[in-house]
Amino acid sequence: MELKGKVLIAQGGGPTAVINQSLVGAVLESRKFPQITKVYGAINGVEGIINERFMDLTRETTHNLEQVGITPASALLSTRIKPDEAYCKEIFKVLKAHDVRYFFYIGGNDSADTVRIVNENAKQSEYEFRAIHIPKTIDNDLVINDHTPGYGSAARYVAEAFIGINLDNRALQGVYIGVVMGRHAGFLTAASSLAKKYPDDGPHLIYLPERPFDVDEFLLDVKGVYEKFGRCVIAVSEGIKDKNGKPIMLSLTDDIETDAHGNVQLSGSGQLGDMLSDLIKSKLNYTRVRSDTLGYTQRNFIGAISDVDSHEAREVGEKAAQFAIWDNVDGSIVLERTGDYSINYHLYPLKDIAGKTKYMPDEFINLAGNNVTDDFYKYARPLIGSGFPQPHRLRAPMAKRLLHDDE
Amino acid sequence: MELKGKVLIAQGGGPTAVINQSLVGAVLESRKFPQITKVYGAINGVEGIINERFMDLTRETTHNLEQVGITPASALLSTRIKPDEAYCKEIFKVLKAHDVRYFFYIGGNDSADTVRIVNENAKQSEYEFRAIHIPKTIDNDLVINDHTPGYGSAARYVAEAFIGINLDNRALQGVYIGVVMGRHAGFLTAASSLAKKYPDDGPHLIYLPERPFDVDEFLLDVKGVYEKFGRCVIAVSEGIKDKNGKPIMLSLTDDIETDAHGNVQLSGSGQLGDMLSDLIKSKLNYTRVRSDTLGYTQRNFIGAISDVDSHEAREVGEKAAQFAIWDNVDGSIVLERTGDYSINYHLYPLKDIAGKTKYMPDEFINLAGNNVTDDFYKYARPLIGSGFPQPHRLRAPMAKRLLHDDE
Repeated sequence: MELKGKVLIAQGGGPTAVINQSLVGAVLESRKFPQITKVYGAINGVEGIINERFMDLTRETTHNLEQVGITPASALLSTRIKPDEAYCKEIFKVLKAHDVRYFFYIGGNDSADTVRIVNENAKQSEYEFRAIHIPKTIDNDLVINDHTPGYGSAARYVAEAFIGINLDNRALQGVYIGVVMGRHAGFLTAASSLAKKYPDDGPHLIYLPERPFDVDEFLLDVKGVYEKFGRCVIAVSEGIKDKNGKPIMLSLTDDIETDAHGNVQLSGSGQLGDMLSDLIKSKLNYTRVRSDTLGYTQRNFIGAISDVDSHEAREVGEKAAQFAIWDNVDGSIVLERTGDYSINYHLYPLKDIAGKTKYMPDEFINLAGNNVTDDFYKYARPLIGSGFPQPHRLRAPMAKRLLHDDE
Repeated sequence: MELKGKVLIAQGGGPTAVINQSLVGAVLESRKFPQITKVYGAINGVEGIINERFMDLTRETTHNLEQVGITPASALLSTRIKPDEAYCKEIFKVLKAHDVRYFFYIGGNDSADTVRIVNENAKQSEYEFRAIHIPKTIDNDLVINDHTPGYGSAARYVAEAFIGINLDNRALQGVYIGVVMGRHAGFLTAASSLAKKYPDDGPHLIYLPERPFDVDEFLLDVKGVYEKFGRCVIAVSEGIKDKNGKPIMLSLTDDIETDAHGNVQLSGSGQLGDMLSDLIKSKLNYTRVRSDTLGYTQRNFIGAISDVDSHEAREVGEKAAQFAIWDNVDGSIVLERTGDYSINYHLYPLKDIAGKTKYMPDEFINLAGNNVTDDFYKYARPLIGSGFPQPHRLRAPMAKRLLHDDE
């Protein structure tokens, strides 16, 4: 029993470097089925549905779709709007009018919840309709999934950035703090550890939202590393919290911006890094202390895309069309790790994914709560893909000193 | 008349992504000459000379040198020390003791000045000695030079970063401010313009240290772009100054750090971006305003190295050895553009380069002082090298609206 009608695809939330691969995978696969009358793309996510801003992707060339696939950040543009019941009623009016029978929404756990609400409204309206959530998030925080498309490329960018940061800090010694994206889950901050090659390489300390951040312990940690290596490279998640679960950022300012989902603005500001930097300068009296906030480049950098991530992002889009159109089922695509390294795709009920957050498991974080474990390395290394660059050091012998005593 | 003795190479100032190519070029070329008894590398620049911390690079393998060549940030480590007369006397004691007859110092205009002082001291001491300054700086601010090794790769990183930033800002509209390195010269900030492909692409506004920054004009510029495109991407140099030449940063805080050369700390802090962001929020009432400070990653990113820059950095190192050892002359290597695109190398007197700063020429900056010209594009495009990534957009037709009137 084939369900005939249109496919509608949209992209929600923050962009990733490979989110368009999922779009292209879903479009190209959907276009193969004779019962699909058109493949539409909604401009600006659910906003585009309400406003009937649909691009007819049945009339896009395959070559250009492939080119868009290797371009970061939502090609259909995005939205931060999270639909409520009233919003969903409007969505259905439009879906019905256009005979949309398949809805694929590429996004994180907020977007999965949108798909769930849309799908429940479809059931209540007795409108035959398939809805699939296609996972994407650089935060890697979707439950059940081994990992999520978008994470591997962001992780590769962060790891490559910390290779350079560590080399720079080794050349001109001091303390360096790099603030990494990650509101609740520390996976992206943890990826900084993939930069390490030699035993004294940074990042030497890694602070994650999964462990309470204690200012005194932090200063002791930094002092310990600095006394050992004469320098210290630190990776800090933007979402670090104190022991009461209060974001460290909130102790900084009263002027805190929140988005439509009620989340605090953590990115797009250098405040957290500057505060930690000032803390080290004033309490430890180190003079050369620098902080950078790695910023939006983490999620959209065109020059550090993981091939593994790119292929998986393509496949989850393709699988969405296959599950919905071949199998006539709803759900959220889930990545399962089946080997070292291989992946398979499953469909889970939307309610199992929607609105839930996965955190770093305990075995990925060291006992002191200031670094990651080898288990994390084994988990994350395949995700950043092939051809990961390697730094090298000089290793020639030192010449004999003539005017000083040799140490 | 061959001058027999040791070669000593050092690296000074801030690292670049290709500074080790210059080291490797100088080492491999120097090792070919029979009158060169050893090739030493000083650890931590002039500090390593004073302390006789010399690595015997005659005993480094060619393979490992090639690997180090493709690794960013000074492999011999660096220093911010600028030697005075007393420091130079100590340097000579060591140079003489080790029979160093050739000194190659890889650095910017401060390092060129160090080479000049060292060389003049050698002349006063009647010690036969050749000194060559090998240019490097991401700021691209050495006089006479068409451009400097290190700039092309930093420019490529900035351009690639702004490709993603623009795509991100297009997907989730708002105002974005990216603060780019460049204390006095705007070349690196200007490189953000290389990210533009489509007419409405950002960066829409570019502010450089070469033009006075006026807060009211800035707000008018931002308003104009925002009203036209519904968004605005801005590239700002960290070194922007008001009409009296006072850094905009200095109006922010009294707690300003200076380095050994008396320079204000501009990098390693998010303050400037945050201030401009707050200004736009408060004066223009735009809600989604974000700022990032691109940070140290600009000068050391391993994943965005320009092949053109890498080859030129290698060649300036090789030419240093050739000029000094074949021709027995002192000076600073200068890059001259001889075609579109080709380069040749010359030797200029150290005093012509030392301590001087090149600025963006007028023909590279638009009349309004808030963007760059096509002349800049023609100048800079070859420097970022081959294989520069290109973003792509969907271009399928829009579907007919059924419930709304089509615009």
